[in-house]
Amino acid sequence: MFDVAVIGRGPAAVSAAVTLKIREKDILLIGEKPSEKVAKAHKIKNYPGLFDISGQELGDAFEEHLNRLDIKPVSDSIVTVYAMGNSFSLQAKSGEVYSAKSVIVATGVVNEKSIDGEKELLGRGVSYCVTCDAQLHKGKAVAVMAYNDVPEDETELLKKLCTEVYFLPMGNVSVPQGVTVINDKPLKIVSKDLFNRTLITEGGQFDISCVFIEKDAIAPTALIPGIETDGRHILTDRKMATNIPGLFACGDVAGKPYQYVKAAGEGNVAALSAVEYISGMNSN
Amino acid sequence: MFDVAVIGRGPAAVSAAVTLKIREKDILLIGEKPSEKVAKAHKIKNYPGLFDISGQELGDAFEEHLNRLDIKPVSDSIVTVYAMGNSFSLQAKSGEVYSAKSVIVATGVVNEKSIDGEKELLGRGVSYCVTCDAQLHKGKAVAVMAYNDVPEDETELLKKLCTEVYFLPMGNVSVPQGVTVINDKPLKIVSKDLFNRTLITEGGQFDISCVFIEKDAIAPTALIPGIETDGRHILTDRKMATNIPGLFACGDVAGKPYQYVKAAGEGNVAALSAVEYISGMNSN
Repeated sequence: MFDVAVIGRGPAAVSAAVTLKIREKDILLIGEKPSEKVAKAHKIKNYPGLFDISGQELGDAFEEHLNRLDIKPVSDSIVTVYAMGNSFSLQAKSGEVYSAKSVIVATGVVNEKSIDGEKELLGRGVSYCVTCDAQLHKGKAVAVMAYNDVPEDETELLKKLCTEVYFLPMGNVSVPQGVTVINDKPLKIVSKDLFNRTLITEGGQFDISCVFIEKDAIAPTALIPGIETDGRHILTDRKMATNIPGLFACGDVAGKPYQYVKAAGEGNVAALSAVEYISGMNSN
Repeated sequence: MFDVAVIGRGPAAVSAAVTLKIREKDILLIGEKPSEKVAKAHKIKNYPGLFDISGQELGDAFEEHLNRLDIKPVSDSIVTVYAMGNSFSLQAKSGEVYSAKSVIVATGVVNEKSIDGEKELLGRGVSYCVTCDAQLHKGKAVAVMAYNDVPEDETELLKKLCTEVYFLPMGNVSVPQGVTVINDKPLKIVSKDLFNRTLITEGGQFDISCVFIEKDAIAPTALIPGIETDGRHILTDRKMATNIPGLFACGDVAGKPYQYVKAAGEGNVAALSAVEYISGMNSN
């Protein structure tokens, strides 16, 4: 059981991890990779103390900071966070399950829109995690909506287990071998019964058991059942607390402005709120 | 008329100034000197991107950042901020009066307690500004409560204008020549009539026209008539807006935790809120 799980690898997540570490907390810092949004920034002129730094340099400085404090991020994605009362259970894409007393969500904003049925059928025919759920759809047809490249081992697994793998490239992604490519715009996912779904596209429809959706950022409402949001943002107070006790949010996912130092500042506040929350748990 | 006046010299003020500058705003950054609280910090381990930096080094990095953006802070203290409807008027200790469309308060927290009567009689027998108010008390006795060293020209002025200058050292401060030193604890200031006040100490009482109080940080309620606070902190929302339209607060004065990167993050948010506020003014 970790004290705090920090989900993300951007400025808010790094800031939260750093403050938790100097407060002697046992942390899980987990995310696919260091923030691409930071790395791609050309020049950042308003991160106080580091003038005219490139995004790559700022990202490197963050990684160095983690390194100096001996914080080792885990390269994996959390696909679902379950509030269990006195702790949280976190399902990772790799299949790993983590638990933590408190959770800090710093996943950034989700730019991909979701399609009709995606949120509603999540866990019942829609999945963000091939490793977690592929076995449930053995001997059935499945679809893969790929906003990002799908790891080869995941497509191999689906091809091995499933009768048919429909593959819908949702952007500039690599198309794996041995799948049925559908170059068509998906419109919605509808549920026929417990085991059968239909994916409806502009040009047709496909009977399947599950739609696997591969994207970097999962909408907060899909990531955390029961979270209160205002559009794409998780609602927080000034302590970065959400409606779920023990779960805090910070950075872009907690609202505008989308700025590096704002995110870092909120990560710090979220970390100290988590420390206070855990301390309150222990005294009860 | 400045677009935005930023009051303070610490991380929140610097961050606000830097973001306002890259948003092409005409700014006044005003405060006595760079933050001593930053300079005195031994080692700072959780300012993301700058690992294990000393307070002095972080303070220098902030000053360098201002320098690189050609922001020249004004070394002076604001003693009162008046909301004038569509603009603000700022009274400085030097006697200078500034005006701005929007104000960002980043003055830090006030550690000195105020004494009974201090807030109530401010402007009517209590003053934070010798330059501004000395002339009003010509030919009368005055008292000086000094939490900080009082500039020599200010005591000279009082000695020249006033019949008697009672001087109460409130800490380890230099005692000027030619004043009546009262080594006694002041308890309260009471008003007798329009021109006469009594300063009551543990050991005695002194009839005076005005008490001049010399301290670095002025309580928000004294600095900004009408501001809503919660104890020592100005109440803000997540946009760092206060109850006074166009006036924003950030950093330690806006609440705990007292952390450098939290302050810097809030400065950034306050700056962008001020930009939005001014833009709204122009479109009306």
